[in-house]
Amino acid sequence: MSIKAATYRGNKTFTVDNKSIAPPSAGEVQIDVAYCGICGTDLHIYLGHMDPRVGFERTIGHEMSGVIAAIGDNVEGLEVGQHIVVRPLDHCGDCPACDAGHEHICHNLKFIGIDTEGAFQQKWNVAAHTIHVLPDDLDLSHAALIEPLAVACHDVDRGKVSQGEDVLVIGGGPIGMLIALVARHAGGNVTISEINENRLAYAEKLGFKTLNPKNVDVAKSIQEQTGGKGADVVFEVSGTQPGVDLMTEAASVRGRIVMVAIHASKPQIDMFRFFWRELELIGARVYLKSDYEQAMKLLSEGVLDCDSFITDIKSLDEIQGAFEALTSNPNAMKSMIKIKQDA
Amino acid sequence: MSIKAATYRGNKTFTVDNKSIAPPSAGEVQIDVAYCGICGTDLHIYLGHMDPRVGFERTIGHEMSGVIAAIGDNVEGLEVGQHIVVRPLDHCGDCPACDAGHEHICHNLKFIGIDTEGAFQQKWNVAAHTIHVLPDDLDLSHAALIEPLAVACHDVDRGKVSQGEDVLVIGGGPIGMLIALVARHAGGNVTISEINENRLAYAEKLGFKTLNPKNVDVAKSIQEQTGGKGADVVFEVSGTQPGVDLMTEAASVRGRIVMVAIHASKPQIDMFRFFWRELELIGARVYLKSDYEQAMKLLSEGVLDCDSFITDIKSLDEIQGAFEALTSNPNAMKSMIKIKQDA
Repeated sequence: MSIKAATYRGNKTFTVDNKSIAPPSAGEVQIDVAYCGICGTDLHIYLGHMDPRVGFERTIGHEMSGVIAAIGDNVEGLEVGQHIVVRPLDHCGDCPACDAGHEHICHNLKFIGIDTEGAFQQKWNVAAHTIHVLPDDLDLSHAALIEPLAVACHDVDRGKVSQGEDVLVIGGGPIGMLIALVARHAGGNVTISEINENRLAYAEKLGFKTLNPKNVDVAKSIQEQTGGKGADVVFEVSGTQPGVDLMTEAASVRGRIVMVAIHASKPQIDMFRFFWRELELIGARVYLKSDYEQAMKLLSEGVLDCDSFITDIKSLDEIQGAFEALTSNPNAMKSMIKIKQDA
Repeated sequence: MSIKAATYRGNKTFTVDNKSIAPPSAGEVQIDVAYCGICGTDLHIYLGHMDPRVGFERTIGHEMSGVIAAIGDNVEGLEVGQHIVVRPLDHCGDCPACDAGHEHICHNLKFIGIDTEGAFQQKWNVAAHTIHVLPDDLDLSHAALIEPLAVACHDVDRGKVSQGEDVLVIGGGPIGMLIALVARHAGGNVTISEINENRLAYAEKLGFKTLNPKNVDVAKSIQEQTGGKGADVVFEVSGTQPGVDLMTEAASVRGRIVMVAIHASKPQIDMFRFFWRELELIGARVYLKSDYEQAMKLLSEGVLDCDSFITDIKSLDEIQGAFEALTSNPNAMKSMIKIKQDA
């Protein structure tokens, strides 16, 4: 069967080509991809930062929604026509992390859509174990937000945010904003620290307290807001040296700091503060099955205003322009590619 | 009453002088100090690193044991003649940390023997709430090891070491060695990383596996020892950049790293590894009442071979020489000052 697929070719370039796709193998299903959002990681790939890992022949994309089009042998419990999302993780089942039950951080984890073929194509064959079935009435453009929302659910779960706790989110991009929403739903009293005024305005529209480190001493403001206590939970989503400086300065005694950001180089960290205040730093990566279920639940409860969060929808043919626009627009939240025309 | 006391005078100098001591105030007891060990912090004070905090008129010392000599008004449940140790923490009772029940890391914590008068003197007045009563048959020189052993108990408790877990202790000085002993008692399979060959020999004598980073790649050795898993719990007790590099390299997926060392400057930390392996970093400072009780229990069970751990005992008059000897002897474990001659 011939389908249309976007392929990363290096040098900030996607081509959209026709290619043939095989029927689903045993254990697989074939998806008509409806929507696929552009993740920060996709942007890194576009910018060439991950060429050694990705190569120049890969169809990427993983923040997707779709409809089951065909089912391979030995697949149970799924039906053609079901609306679904994919949890894009492929673990080895045979390493110390898998043995310990931490399959989502398997030593040999393949991230589907980065390490293997992804969703910026009309039809996509994936292992049945990655599928989560959606309610039929969930808008498929909204459903394509489940993957990043599951990241936020995992982060908030790792931080054990509970009712009445003071929460600081450092970095108000798409993931930071979703963490803020999920943390507020968990009972947190959330402040967002961000330098982009448009993002700050959006955060305020969503009802969050905001602080701009260009204008105020954020750590001091948090101490004042909390009667000298500091933030019970801090999410470091900025990936910057000022972000990691702030995380230790703003945290309360026994504060939990969740490391969400990817720091490509080793920042300097105030280890004395970890000792002195018995701080905790907690790494958080991707998600569990339960985080996907939680994200689906929160979406159905309207925790996320999807229509304002999706700032742009383009067609698969326009994918090159969508990536170009995103790199030059720091105000955007979520850009999405609509792949199935009748979705 | 006139007593003999050692006073830190700055410039690597103690003087031993006669001074008068008042009877215990209400809520206080007066202790005949038996033994007082020299802590790493005392050594920092001696070397002048803490002059602004300590000044030049302070009698320091806190790793002590003694006998109750007199009891002030409004003190219940204590008797003259009881053998005791002091938990040298004075919290304010009125800050966010105290409110949250974390009195040992009170925002305004005074460490008795650093911020206030300490135990390198014949008689010492202390608040009754700091007292732990010892069994009469416990050797008072051994009892002076309860304070550093309680530090180790707190560290191991913060790291939640459980039966069969692989543990790496980075730094085999006195605290590192005590952590190794307590972690082994908790069921850990302990390896010590240390560069001093004499300390390594002592660790081996105590039955620990050892690695010298001057000779081997410790992270690689730990990965090999553990079938590629890594250490479930890592204690960073070195306070060095190579130590914090090793802690992230050696830890397993979801490994817990306990920050015991005092890092005076901000080291570079591999935040990517925290994200990638969902590592946890846990600050640990001083101890709780329960850690003192645990330390007393472990001491009575013979977990620590006190006689080999105490490498030197000198009199109060010899305190200057004891500090001088300790700064020039990296092989020493615990140097102790014997203050009560019949103890």
